[in-house]
Amino acid sequence: MMKKLLMCIPNISAGLDQTVIEQVADAVRQTPAVQLVNYSADADHNRSVFTYWGEPRAVLEATQAMAVKAINLIDMTQHHGAHPRLGAVDVVPFVPLSNVETAEAVQISRQFGKFMGVQGIPVFYYEDSATCPERQSLVNIRRGQYEGLATKLQDPAWYPDEGPAKFNPKSGAIVTGARFPLIAFNVNLNSDNLDIANRIAKAVRHSSGGFRYVRAMGVVLPSKGIVQVSMNLLNYTQTPLPRVLETIRAEATRYGITIAGTEIIGTIPLGAVEDIMKYYVQAHDFELSQIIGVRD
Amino acid sequence: MMKKLLMCIPNISAGLDQTVIEQVADAVRQTPAVQLVNYSADADHNRSVFTYWGEPRAVLEATQAMAVKAINLIDMTQHHGAHPRLGAVDVVPFVPLSNVETAEAVQISRQFGKFMGVQGIPVFYYEDSATCPERQSLVNIRRGQYEGLATKLQDPAWYPDEGPAKFNPKSGAIVTGARFPLIAFNVNLNSDNLDIANRIAKAVRHSSGGFRYVRAMGVVLPSKGIVQVSMNLLNYTQTPLPRVLETIRAEATRYGITIAGTEIIGTIPLGAVEDIMKYYVQAHDFELSQIIGVRD
Repeated sequence: MMKKLLMCIPNISAGLDQTVIEQVADAVRQTPAVQLVNYSADADHNRSVFTYWGEPRAVLEATQAMAVKAINLIDMTQHHGAHPRLGAVDVVPFVPLSNVETAEAVQISRQFGKFMGVQGIPVFYYEDSATCPERQSLVNIRRGQYEGLATKLQDPAWYPDEGPAKFNPKSGAIVTGARFPLIAFNVNLNSDNLDIANRIAKAVRHSSGGFRYVRAMGVVLPSKGIVQVSMNLLNYTQTPLPRVLETIRAEATRYGITIAGTEIIGTIPLGAVEDIMKYYVQAHDFELSQIIGVRD
Repeated sequence: MMKKLLMCIPNISAGLDQTVIEQVADAVRQTPAVQLVNYSADADHNRSVFTYWGEPRAVLEATQAMAVKAINLIDMTQHHGAHPRLGAVDVVPFVPLSNVETAEAVQISRQFGKFMGVQGIPVFYYEDSATCPERQSLVNIRRGQYEGLATKLQDPAWYPDEGPAKFNPKSGAIVTGARFPLIAFNVNLNSDNLDIANRIAKAVRHSSGGFRYVRAMGVVLPSKGIVQVSMNLLNYTQTPLPRVLETIRAEATRYGITIAGTEIIGTIPLGAVEDIMKYYVQAHDFELSQIIGVRD
């Protein structure tokens, strides 16, 4: 079995001071068994994003080291930038890439949250780690920004999930949580009939009786003169891409329509590629570690 | 389009002296844009193997640096080991992983061969880079080993492809060439009829009129009570895995038989995974760079 792969993509409120950014990157680099895949800074936003992955425990360790470094180096009382933010270590999402369930990613995010809370920083859990529905959305948590945080923390509805309900001027607050990687997947039909695309979308989407982790709608592609079932697959382990595609094929067949092609918009996690290999090649025991060119 | 990925797996006649092995590894590590994926030494064979990949030009550069270092540090007059070998830099295969055609890999191996020949080392091209059929097989070229090389080089049939036809006692000779990665792929049939497995194998294999890059035979799997079409796919870009699998499915259907499952034995190159995604998911424009968890 291929080892577990968890990704972390923290957003830090430092995009101008290269020495700060490099020291934060080094904290990740120096953690064994974690790969810093890339990082980039935005001067206008005065903000930088780091992407790294590895086995969940190693990623937790790297994230703790990274956050401690950023908290030491960044002073929010001096921070200005165009992008909304709550704190020095602003948002820390944990995203499962392969062989990691949501529950494990939630647990990692909670361990990170506790670790930072103990250090006197208010922490909010969002997305799959949220402790109540109002906290699922980052936008909700971040409303009012750093400048409004002192007031917000006095509202019992916004007591933090970890750490003191007390404004920390230097560091602000941290939002962290697990979120499953979404796959934007579109299926093009050899038809110009939007009604049929909508019927098929209705058949596969959760809101109208379809698969639990599918959002779907029919759309017209005027440039191609065809219609499309445009989807978000919210959890590829629970509702695998091939099952959705084959259901669409079966539904299309009812109307005498074929699939012209599909599009994966943006990224797809390695674990979903493993599912697809197993499903279509019928290679029941296939493992990602068999792919050469993928670094273990 | 995902960038080109060429792999090189040189075998070096040093498996005991850790400082030599590390210096050779460093030569690869220090080449920009090349990833040293792993390396291991075998003390009994007194031999080590390095695996690295990157864009073809970068891999050529790393290989030249690696070979110069090894040639400087290794003295074949002092070498003893259980494994057959011709020289200090014994065998240097170049293997396309994605977006690299055989022709380009051959060209890279030839550039490497010329580079080493100029330095006074006899070089033989093998596999897809061979200059005549007798030199395709490594076993043929290596017959007689280092100890027989002085005599072999006097035979006009074994004049080297590059470098002098003159024994170089310190370095021996180098064998290099391109070889396409082979996929060992087995298809299990819901049947115990070996005759049917053999008929299907015959339908898909090159030697009896089938696909150009397929070797196949029927075998019995006694433990499972079923039969299997056991194959080597010699060039997945020219004869893609899904086409072979679907042909087997169609042939099996003639006999009222279904496919129970398949096995990919050992490794599969990233490029083949891209083909499979495109074929089955019908994602015509899919690119490997969309997979998160694969390092670019």
